[in-house]
Amino acid sequence: MTDEDMPRDTRTLMRREIDEIPAAVARLVRGEAARLDDVAAAVRRARPRLAVVAARGTSDHAAVYARYLVESELRLPTAMAAASLPTIYHRSSDWSGVLLLSLSQSGASPDILAVTEAARAGGATTVAITNDSSSPLAMMAEHAIACEAGPERAVAATKTYVAELAAVAALVARLSPESVLADGLKGLPEVLVEVLSAADGWLASAEPLVEAAVSADRMLVVSRGFNLPTALEVALKFKETTGIFAEGYSSADLMHGPVALAQPRVPLLAFRPDGPMGEAIDGVIDRVTAAGSRVWLVGGRELAKRGAGIHAALALPVDLPETLTPLAFVVPGFVLVECVARRRGMNPDAPAGLTKVTLTM
Amino acid sequence: MTDEDMPRDTRTLMRREIDEIPAAVARLVRGEAARLDDVAAAVRRARPRLAVVAARGTSDHAAVYARYLVESELRLPTAMAAASLPTIYHRSSDWSGVLLLSLSQSGASPDILAVTEAARAGGATTVAITNDSSSPLAMMAEHAIACEAGPERAVAATKTYVAELAAVAALVARLSPESVLADGLKGLPEVLVEVLSAADGWLASAEPLVEAAVSADRMLVVSRGFNLPTALEVALKFKETTGIFAEGYSSADLMHGPVALAQPRVPLLAFRPDGPMGEAIDGVIDRVTAAGSRVWLVGGRELAKRGAGIHAALALPVDLPETLTPLAFVVPGFVLVECVARRRGMNPDAPAGLTKVTLTM
Repeated sequence: MTDEDMPRDTRTLMRREIDEIPAAVARLVRGEAARLDDVAAAVRRARPRLAVVAARGTSDHAAVYARYLVESELRLPTAMAAASLPTIYHRSSDWSGVLLLSLSQSGASPDILAVTEAARAGGATTVAITNDSSSPLAMMAEHAIACEAGPERAVAATKTYVAELAAVAALVARLSPESVLADGLKGLPEVLVEVLSAADGWLASAEPLVEAAVSADRMLVVSRGFNLPTALEVALKFKETTGIFAEGYSSADLMHGPVALAQPRVPLLAFRPDGPMGEAIDGVIDRVTAAGSRVWLVGGRELAKRGAGIHAALALPVDLPETLTPLAFVVPGFVLVECVARRRGMNPDAPAGLTKVTLTM
Repeated sequence: MTDEDMPRDTRTLMRREIDEIPAAVARLVRGEAARLDDVAAAVRRARPRLAVVAARGTSDHAAVYARYLVESELRLPTAMAAASLPTIYHRSSDWSGVLLLSLSQSGASPDILAVTEAARAGGATTVAITNDSSSPLAMMAEHAIACEAGPERAVAATKTYVAELAAVAALVARLSPESVLADGLKGLPEVLVEVLSAADGWLASAEPLVEAAVSADRMLVVSRGFNLPTALEVALKFKETTGIFAEGYSSADLMHGPVALAQPRVPLLAFRPDGPMGEAIDGVIDRVTAAGSRVWLVGGRELAKRGAGIHAALALPVDLPETLTPLAFVVPGFVLVECVARRRGMNPDAPAGLTKVTLTM
């Protein structure tokens, strides 16, 4: 068969990379096991008293996930790094006893490098999570976990985001032997294949709501707790690739003011895990529905019980601990964004004015 | 003179409360000095190893300010509390050696109370900053600083926000005797009177740009470092009172994706301190200007040197250390928001769907 005989893959790079998410997670969880064991052993020896996470852009949302997971599973107080303190203000912090997690797909952003350099010089245990084991950040940190999700050619990062979450979860699982993370991670690649298929079915059945997003210029994307980064990340993807002003919010923060923006022309996308957090988010969903917004819901089995009609709900048939749902819930979000971008006549692979690697000081 | 002879004050409550900011700061800085001395002495004795700040809504932006100030001036790693960990997930953190700063205008939000209760039970040094010394939060924390900014009747908080910043700065000034904060705070009320007057002059001279905001439905508000909370807070006020989707960003984070939203119909408001941080923000201003956005700038004397015409720049004639500029820069932001809300036919004192006290778990 010659090249010309090959059926041409007309899908966007973004969509093809979304489809590679299960394989990327499998490679990380299975292929990086020995490296993850070594890094976990080094962190255990260092006995950190607190954790700091440093990142920008999409990786910053993986950092928000790390912030919740490290604090809840390891009982380590966890802060997000303020990069400007070392880079612009030249103020030093006290890095002794700190576990620094630096996340960057490219491993090249100067501000994340500067934080990592300052932390390492100040005595922190530094761990880099990047997609490239030969990147400057992987070299700068004492320990490096390479996601090795394969080259990502779409400007909008998708598979490397989920691979970063998997790297964080796999590291925390090793540091918290009693947590349910390790078991959940084992079957995750297969779960993600199911999630992709469910996401496609959802979009096909929810045409009126896809159309509402295609014609929207503003949107709210909410969740809370472990899935706060899911809301922030899907909102960022909407911004990057569709031009929609989609703002990501904690459902609790939304109630403290920004809920004033809810109205019929502003659709809401909510990520709702089963259990007590889902019940907490329900209050916001009801409030925004009453304001006339169209609502999409992505979540677990409990969503199947909600009355149909008002909401386009995707009840994913997955049995994951809530701590791992961010790796699954984001997938239908990405699939929706890619579809809306194309339907708006945009090229999601090359958003106007963006480049793959952003260098900020 | 009878009541009927009195000229009726037709200004909105929001505007009247903005005008009360200098007096509120004076009351805090001068009237609460003895209490601030006591709290500072207690914190010094506790020798915290890290700080955590807990807040929601507008107070959460005062918390972002606290996060930068405590880390840079006291060299204490500082984290923002994740309220859902104790309230929804019932996960405990390690609170020993922690300085917890809880900020809430009402002192009544259940989630901030829950974090404060958990922290105090876990051995943290707990300090509440509220507008009401008899509020539940002031009772719950071991130490309380009352802003006593007077009753705030507009739903959109303005003077209590600046009073919270002043409380944070006054506490940090006492814990960091070498910092320039104490000197700057002394003359701050008088500086703020000048700032108010300059803000009114700016609006009067920048009619085309006011008009651009009045007809906008989306906006970007940016700064970075100590003034990141200024951008977040002014964006929130736009959302609450004007219905404009105004998103607040760190200028560095904006470059990692959301800059794709910049376009002629999306105006940008930037807070630009003098010095190296101002230079770092200039790159974003230039990029957004090139995308055709209208740009307002609020900042220090360096702005007077920028070419007029393209930008409506307010160069505030203030000599404050950058660490105190957030208390001044936010004032023209509030004045602009209040004006835009009225011009859009909204009532900034009673935004649709919002109440003064929001209770989230």
